[in-house]
Amino acid sequence: MLPEPANDPGLRAWCDIPTSTDFPIQNLPFGVFSTADRSARTATRIGDQVVDLSALAELGLLNDLPHSQEAYATDSLNPLLRSGRPGITSLRRRLSEILRKDGPWDKDRDLITRKAFLPVASATMHVPVKIGDYTDFYSSREHATNVGSMFRDPKNALLPNWLHLPVGYHGRASSVVVSGQEVRRPNGQTRPDDQAPPIFGPSKQLDFELEMGFITFDGPELGNPIPIGKAQDHIFGLVLVNDWSARDIQKWEYVPLGPFLAKNFATSISAWVVTLDALAPFRVEAPEQDPPPLPYLHRTGPQGLDISLEVDIVPAGSTAATVCRSNSRYLYWSMEQQLAHHTVNGCNVRAGDLMASGTISGPTPDSAGSMLELAWKGTRPLAMPDGSERTFIHDGDTVVMRGFAQRDQVRIGFGELRATVQPAFP
Amino acid sequence: MLPEPANDPGLRAWCDIPTSTDFPIQNLPFGVFSTADRSARTATRIGDQVVDLSALAELGLLNDLPHSQEAYATDSLNPLLRSGRPGITSLRRRLSEILRKDGPWDKDRDLITRKAFLPVASATMHVPVKIGDYTDFYSSREHATNVGSMFRDPKNALLPNWLHLPVGYHGRASSVVVSGQEVRRPNGQTRPDDQAPPIFGPSKQLDFELEMGFITFDGPELGNPIPIGKAQDHIFGLVLVNDWSARDIQKWEYVPLGPFLAKNFATSISAWVVTLDALAPFRVEAPEQDPPPLPYLHRTGPQGLDISLEVDIVPAGSTAATVCRSNSRYLYWSMEQQLAHHTVNGCNVRAGDLMASGTISGPTPDSAGSMLELAWKGTRPLAMPDGSERTFIHDGDTVVMRGFAQRDQVRIGFGELRATVQPAFP
Repeated sequence: MLPEPANDPGLRAWCDIPTSTDFPIQNLPFGVFSTADRSARTATRIGDQVVDLSALAELGLLNDLPHSQEAYATDSLNPLLRSGRPGITSLRRRLSEILRKDGPWDKDRDLITRKAFLPVASATMHVPVKIGDYTDFYSSREHATNVGSMFRDPKNALLPNWLHLPVGYHGRASSVVVSGQEVRRPNGQTRPDDQAPPIFGPSKQLDFELEMGFITFDGPELGNPIPIGKAQDHIFGLVLVNDWSARDIQKWEYVPLGPFLAKNFATSISAWVVTLDALAPFRVEAPEQDPPPLPYLHRTGPQGLDISLEVDIVPAGSTAATVCRSNSRYLYWSMEQQLAHHTVNGCNVRAGDLMASGTISGPTPDSAGSMLELAWKGTRPLAMPDGSERTFIHDGDTVVMRGFAQRDQVRIGFGELRATVQPAFP
Repeated sequence: MLPEPANDPGLRAWCDIPTSTDFPIQNLPFGVFSTADRSARTATRIGDQVVDLSALAELGLLNDLPHSQEAYATDSLNPLLRSGRPGITSLRRRLSEILRKDGPWDKDRDLITRKAFLPVASATMHVPVKIGDYTDFYSSREHATNVGSMFRDPKNALLPNWLHLPVGYHGRASSVVVSGQEVRRPNGQTRPDDQAPPIFGPSKQLDFELEMGFITFDGPELGNPIPIGKAQDHIFGLVLVNDWSARDIQKWEYVPLGPFLAKNFATSISAWVVTLDALAPFRVEAPEQDPPPLPYLHRTGPQGLDISLEVDIVPAGSTAATVCRSNSRYLYWSMEQQLAHHTVNGCNVRAGDLMASGTISGPTPDSAGSMLELAWKGTRPLAMPDGSERTFIHDGDTVVMRGFAQRDQVRIGFGELRATVQPAFP
């Protein structure tokens, strides 16, 4: 495969970009924003500037691409995604040409800046896609092992199916929110005392889960699988995901049909979808699989991604504590394997579906992607800079996730995924 | 509460209606259809006639109702549902007036028939709503007890949480199909021999699940619950649901996060949404609950529904065998309890969400709502009229579900939910 021209590390933009930005010209992610004076439309981002795609389209700069003007001026990326991977690849290449120093549109930089640029601080970001279905996997061996050790048997921590298929379940699409939106602590049933009846009230064990998620292009019609060798054709890009979890609610409700109210009160995602194209230079081999999976899950090439991940907790009025440093390369099951598995029974995927990885935990204690693991079921509280301790998340805490890939002086990042926890409904 | 005028058993329509119809003037369900010459639009049904709501709107008969002309002429009921329960109640009353013998529009019957009526055989029915999220509950005590007895311990068949909350899980919205659409047998991983590795191939234990589902109006914003006393304000109407299940795939995949590929290859629903208004005369007390649930789940009035249910299996080229006769009144948890529980953590519901009951099994062996139970895990094959036997569903079999409520000579039915099983993807 030829290197993607828009990924060339030698490219420079004609606009000012902070040196440590997540959003150099080699990134060019996609998102949806609105402003005080105008409703939502699509955008890319460069440095600290939002670039309004509907304005670029009005300037005639996107004319020969396979998207209507309306597709740029709407409140989700879904109409753009209908063009599939080739359509998005061509759009990103065009944006790269438009913004490239000494490129064909450099001479128009003043006009483009005036018509299409605005500072990120002036934009309100939205959930970038209308999510048809949200699926959450459970693809970190370290996470599954930690949880299995805690709640079952440390010697048989993985259940028998775990090494044979990417375990997953369906989540709730309606409650996916974007970075910046507050999250309310859920009320619910728990049973803290096994000998007494269940009780009702705010969850006492609110947790984050550090995940990444991918967003799909349309797949084939219902009844037809996506073979693993074609899975990349149906993956648009990635976001950071905080799969908020109420551990006490989960423990009581989850047998035998899985997590429900413990998860569906909110799932936070980052605002910018970083394309699979932009992440191509950061592919690495995923962990070796023993036993080898069934043929429909055989990997074809390097399917891991070397993306550094961090989680901060910021207590109200205090400073941040980085509580987790992990990496998406630890994931045992790749996105391609997840998508091949999800569709092997004929289940259909549609443009804008979200599929998350499951909590990404690494091999060291500080790389675990949830408070459940970091504070080991409440037994090892984490110290905060303000002197307080955390075993789970408190009201007023802000949880911040970051992710980025870096090579050849180029850093492709996701920006922040940030959410503050509000007290439960009274 | 005053009786709903459109439910008056004395009402007669000015058009011909077969005597044993599911669709008298007291029903007036909602659906979406298309014809060879025109794209999808909304409809009601009376007898064997589809009544095109966009045509009624063009005739000016729906002018003062809270819906735009476009809302009638589109491919889902969602825009109509945005008007909430009052909007749909007023629309159904108007349809009742329009179609009523000796009513204000009886004199226009020829014009109305010519412009808006067409025989059901000329209409292609579609999934009536764009389903944002699909949730499946597990609310039949008899079903949960049967499954618990089969796979766990007959003496402790119900898990500890079952009597305290309506257990539920998220399903897949993309693969919900309408009556008449074929369903393909899923491929997948199973592990028939616990001592050997898993294998891949077509499911050998394809099953139906007899369920009913309700479709929602918009609820409050994310973070706010729907109290049980207001749950009915957010329930539009009901459909029959066949929650197709591959038992062998389910058995291997479902721990610890619940059913996934065993269910998401297809869920069939009936084409006509029967409104909660039309079903009001058929409310009955739901089964007594012991222990009483927590206060947020306390029922307010009769929350059961007396709807007779049947399932036929029709082997290819043969005649039908009725294998199950059940009733929705057996459900232990009501729709109102399901909706209150679903939102008690702040999870938001949107117009067009689907929430299904879980398999509806009754107290007698022939009232079980799945082959798993009817043939007791393959040990008691059912005889078909053609001399063959069934423990699960064969390729070429058609599964037909029916449901109706009857009182005072009025029968409010759902029509048929019908689907034929195709061989697995080669």
